[in-house]
Amino acid sequence: MSKVFVDLGISLDGFIAGLNGGAKNPLGDGGIEIHNWMFKQKAFLQHLKLEGRETNNPDNDLIENIFNRIGANIMGKKMFIEGEANWPEESPFHCPVYVLTHQKREPWERPGGTTFYFVNDDIRTVLEKAKKDAGNKDVRISGGADVIRQYLNAGLVDEISLHVAPIMIGKGVRLFEKIDKEKFSFEISKVINSPMVTHLFYMVINHNKQQ
Amino acid sequence: MSKVFVDLGISLDGFIAGLNGGAKNPLGDGGIEIHNWMFKQKAFLQHLKLEGRETNNPDNDLIENIFNRIGANIMGKKMFIEGEANWPEESPFHCPVYVLTHQKREPWERPGGTTFYFVNDDIRTVLEKAKKDAGNKDVRISGGADVIRQYLNAGLVDEISLHVAPIMIGKGVRLFEKIDKEKFSFEISKVINSPMVTHLFYMVINHNKQQ
Repeated sequence: MSKVFVDLGISLDGFIAGLNGGAKNPLGDGGIEIHNWMFKQKAFLQHLKLEGRETNNPDNDLIENIFNRIGANIMGKKMFIEGEANWPEESPFHCPVYVLTHQKREPWERPGGTTFYFVNDDIRTVLEKAKKDAGNKDVRISGGADVIRQYLNAGLVDEISLHVAPIMIGKGVRLFEKIDKEKFSFEISKVINSPMVTHLFYMVINHNKQQ
Repeated sequence: MSKVFVDLGISLDGFIAGLNGGAKNPLGDGGIEIHNWMFKQKAFLQHLKLEGRETNNPDNDLIENIFNRIGANIMGKKMFIEGEANWPEESPFHCPVYVLTHQKREPWERPGGTTFYFVNDDIRTVLEKAKKDAGNKDVRISGGADVIRQYLNAGLVDEISLHVAPIMIGKGVRLFEKIDKEKFSFEISKVINSPMVTHLFYMVINHNKQQ
């Protein structure tokens, strides 16, 4: 069955973005550094139609595996606004992306298979739509922190992977805030280390999962 | 040469203790859970003169290695107050412990080789004393967060290891706050994973190290 997962780069001090993020400052002050390890990998760059760099290493393989499993994405409005101003013409998703927003807007189809759907439904309804699109593949809750929190606290996330960069951001957007920790627990699933980043994989055990 | 290191249990959301910590609530609300993995290990329990449990696993070996390298400890007043009320008669350090405090107090010698020294010097002077005591062994900056921050920001820490428990604390004492990130950077040294905890080891590269 299709899984729902979160996959994020994070600094050692717990931030997924710096301060003052927005269309002109994607990922906020210093936030881009969280992903330095990724910018070296062919599997990431080819999704942006950029020439490849390193291959055949654990970081690259892992990115490839993650891209391959995604059948649909869900993201918040703020993340979309940052991306809309900065993604290349051919958006790097290559599958449906649901954007949670009050704004009404027609679906926005990009070359390369990405279509953005702007939806004002509750998060469960959006997830059902995304799952239907994903088929046998998985649904990624892409971000930002607020959207991830909503899905975690609603018991709707099955897995979370964090790519921990050994850097300090200091101020910005923390991933884990206002989390309702009674609702779920994490189990370590696997850990992959490399010189630039440590990849932590967890299963999310939802305590009151609706079957 | 003797190293200066920090070694701490931490929750996945970045806390080393919960709210309301003190003599009657060591590690604060829920904070004890950060160390659940440790309470199963013989190498830890024998330092409290408790009967052993598990041995011959990576978690146990790692605790043994850490205890073996410590020649002296430095800790803050708050950590000492919590410990004084809760450590057994034979304190679990078995070497000198420098307590940073304005309070004047004679050295307090415990059975088993631990002596607490209460010092009102600047942190560099205290470190020099601890290094002298430690000889060929290393100095551990034991905590709490505020003391660790002072030593990190002063460029005096060589290594940091974090034992990441897959739990959420939500509110309490964060390890990385008010860190002067321009002063140093981290390099991943090694990662050891086990079912209950992930051990992250970093080298601290101090940018303006006084030679």
